[in-house]
Amino acid sequence: MSISDRDLARLFSAKRVALIGASANPVKWGSIILSNIRLGHFNGQVFPVNPREKEIQGYKVYPDVASLPDGVDLAVIAVPASVVMETIRECGYKGIPFAIVISAGFREAGNPDKENALVEAARASNVKIVGPNTMGIFSGGTGLHALMPPVRPPVGGFAFLSQSGNIGTQTLALGGINQVGFRYYVSSGNEADLAIHDYLDFFASDPEVKVVGAYIEGVTDGRAFYEAAKRVTGKKPLVIYKSGESMEGARAAGSHCGAMASSPRIFQGALDQAGIVRAYGTEHIVDFARAFLYLPLPKGLRVGIVSWGGGWGVVTTDLCRKAGLQVPRLDQETLEKLDKVLPEYWSRGNPVDLVGSLDLNAHMKALEAVALSPNVDAVLTLGTIGGATLIKNSSGSVFGRALIAAAEAADAAFRERISDLIEKSRKPIIGVSMKNEDLQDGSSSGQRLVVYSSPERGVRAIAAMAKYQSFCKARGLNAWLGNEPAA
Amino acid sequence: MSISDRDLARLFSAKRVALIGASANPVKWGSIILSNIRLGHFNGQVFPVNPREKEIQGYKVYPDVASLPDGVDLAVIAVPASVVMETIRECGYKGIPFAIVISAGFREAGNPDKENALVEAARASNVKIVGPNTMGIFSGGTGLHALMPPVRPPVGGFAFLSQSGNIGTQTLALGGINQVGFRYYVSSGNEADLAIHDYLDFFASDPEVKVVGAYIEGVTDGRAFYEAAKRVTGKKPLVIYKSGESMEGARAAGSHCGAMASSPRIFQGALDQAGIVRAYGTEHIVDFARAFLYLPLPKGLRVGIVSWGGGWGVVTTDLCRKAGLQVPRLDQETLEKLDKVLPEYWSRGNPVDLVGSLDLNAHMKALEAVALSPNVDAVLTLGTIGGATLIKNSSGSVFGRALIAAAEAADAAFRERISDLIEKSRKPIIGVSMKNEDLQDGSSSGQRLVVYSSPERGVRAIAAMAKYQSFCKARGLNAWLGNEPAA
Repeated sequence: MSISDRDLARLFSAKRVALIGASANPVKWGSIILSNIRLGHFNGQVFPVNPREKEIQGYKVYPDVASLPDGVDLAVIAVPASVVMETIRECGYKGIPFAIVISAGFREAGNPDKENALVEAARASNVKIVGPNTMGIFSGGTGLHALMPPVRPPVGGFAFLSQSGNIGTQTLALGGINQVGFRYYVSSGNEADLAIHDYLDFFASDPEVKVVGAYIEGVTDGRAFYEAAKRVTGKKPLVIYKSGESMEGARAAGSHCGAMASSPRIFQGALDQAGIVRAYGTEHIVDFARAFLYLPLPKGLRVGIVSWGGGWGVVTTDLCRKAGLQVPRLDQETLEKLDKVLPEYWSRGNPVDLVGSLDLNAHMKALEAVALSPNVDAVLTLGTIGGATLIKNSSGSVFGRALIAAAEAADAAFRERISDLIEKSRKPIIGVSMKNEDLQDGSSSGQRLVVYSSPERGVRAIAAMAKYQSFCKARGLNAWLGNEPAA
Repeated sequence: MSISDRDLARLFSAKRVALIGASANPVKWGSIILSNIRLGHFNGQVFPVNPREKEIQGYKVYPDVASLPDGVDLAVIAVPASVVMETIRECGYKGIPFAIVISAGFREAGNPDKENALVEAARASNVKIVGPNTMGIFSGGTGLHALMPPVRPPVGGFAFLSQSGNIGTQTLALGGINQVGFRYYVSSGNEADLAIHDYLDFFASDPEVKVVGAYIEGVTDGRAFYEAAKRVTGKKPLVIYKSGESMEGARAAGSHCGAMASSPRIFQGALDQAGIVRAYGTEHIVDFARAFLYLPLPKGLRVGIVSWGGGWGVVTTDLCRKAGLQVPRLDQETLEKLDKVLPEYWSRGNPVDLVGSLDLNAHMKALEAVALSPNVDAVLTLGTIGGATLIKNSSGSVFGRALIAAAEAADAAFRERISDLIEKSRKPIIGVSMKNEDLQDGSSSGQRLVVYSSPERGVRAIAAMAKYQSFCKARGLNAWLGNEPAA
């Protein structure tokens, strides 16, 4: 079955949502999901269904599906597996076009027949199913948190699908820590009906979605997946984290071992051909999403490195080379600019070692020189951001209040300057700070600020951007220019 | 020059420390280092030296080295490079056996002759030098923070050497986040006099040091390094992070390019032969140190996985296989124990998928069954720790106060249980939580609790422990049993 984009738009913008199996018992999922919807400030109406309650959490409760008001877009189903099929049929009678089947106990529990029967019933009833065995969906457009886990992701341009609920939950939580906002999230569950290619097609078509990601354990329709993935990458970056590649992992994922054992290489080939960026962990997904959301793509592989300390410069250079990036020598003009701001014994090379200078103005000037160098396509600035935090957090305040304030002002100015420089140079500039608290920045001036907690993460993100850029260039794609600074 | 252990013991337990170049100007290193020593609650005496001040930060100031009291163990030198040599000679006249030369401007700035002259003068004066171009040392025994950066590492059994000050600072800061306490830290700088093998020898011999780590950019005396490293690994684990391996990285590290280009493989071979565990990043160093400090070594490669969610189980299985670990099927007796606590549709495999159960008692029983299985050498428990934090932090508290309290109590009991199980099973058990705040645990019951924020980190740590264990086994080493639970 193929779903048109229009159809899934209704799922993800549902304004009238029924929760079938709503519960007054706070440790039941039928209560937790209702709380999540309520506390998530859903911009729509919720209709709990439960035959034994009149009111739950202040909502009027309906005794059954038949008595629901008309025009319900979406039913969230959290009833025992044994009555799911019947519930789906009732949704069909009622004209509800979508159902999220939270309930488990189907294919994943060794009951493929039960799942097949469910799908047949759903199709006969004209109800499209998310799941079963799903943790739900999130829509940033309507604020719908139809989710089992009590996570409240920030809203933004990232659309994410996960074939594992707990990997999805972790990714949503990491998004909150790393300033990655979600437009949509779907825990796709067993994908008995709606499958990964349907969601990808919708994410490709929705203009509010700027970057797409997915965690995959297995794909049943490889061709449909590949075609949908290409439709995404023709418009915007697609980041994929795939597991279940070892025999034992495939077994754990419930995939057929023999079929999977030969596939990792084939899968990687397909990913490369479709211009998909590969992630190896949830942190990678979120890191790449952040870079793609906030930064222009590098035009090439040449990285300029500006480091407060020499060690990070060395480490970062090694990492760049291992990742297939270049660390070029700087041009004469840039070297002369740097001569003016650095001590005479500076190494005159790339990485630019700021030799521990406490003069943040020199850091800024050095960064500016490197960012504007014609030899450089992307820049990593290491250690400067976070200096202020380090100073502030030194327990017992080695430094006086005035010094801390000065360091904070310098830090803020430096962050501003990075934003400006990205606009001016049209190149990605990434900060690396030792301190986790620097990863977040709520200020509007931080719009283009991407900061990671290690050189590894920064280099990885540049490599991911460079990979997608080279794909776009090879295909003559100019479609994805969302983050290009205005000329 | 070879240094006997006894000598470095005096350096790291120095009780009478002179700071030459102490300053009243709070943005000078001569002031910041003094603040760090003062606020670090040094269990000894500090004698600032400055010809123009009478008192700084409440300390009596001495006008020159000659007027210092007798019996000074250590001079910290933060004066311009041009007067360092003279200062060292003065230290020699005064009988001060050790000097930390903070001052830069020697070999690293293209002045090898200046450095050679300094070393000659130091040897003629009987002063042993840390550095030059060092960020200082830390001693957990005396609380001496003779450091440029204002970091206050926790005290414990880890001894760490860094050839880069900023990598060292980052590692100290990460130690604070990840419950890794330091016995000693040295930023070894240019290693003009005291070199990595001297420090390693001392770390090997000091019984307070349980685990040793080093960040290395280059080794000048390969043979001495190798022999010292083997003396460490014969007694305790040694973790090494080496950079400067690419041509460009070696250039940045100031190493000779031609010599370095062929060396990574040789270096790796030497590490393997010496039983050294290799780290690729500061996070790895700290993660491995934490595992070695708190856990017994696994007796083999077989990992049992208990996961709250299926996705993490799959991911972790893949990671184990890639790391050369095994994910064996469980024995019949263990399966039967698990049948009693898990829903009947559980997958009866390893990883053990807890299928989202909210019953933490079932989690505990499942973990216990797996930890005691004869088929398993090490255990990863994913998702259970952190459930309470997730619940507590859900903004708007979806869950009521009583539920949160119950979740926290269950979490605390689970952590206790892990400690007990490690004692009982004599196997390493590692927790993985989504939430960073779970990585810390101040309670005494957490002594044996090792928690990481991702499956990647957990698997990596088990692989590191298994590597050292197999080295010890092959060599018949029983020396390192520090973390073996009492029989």
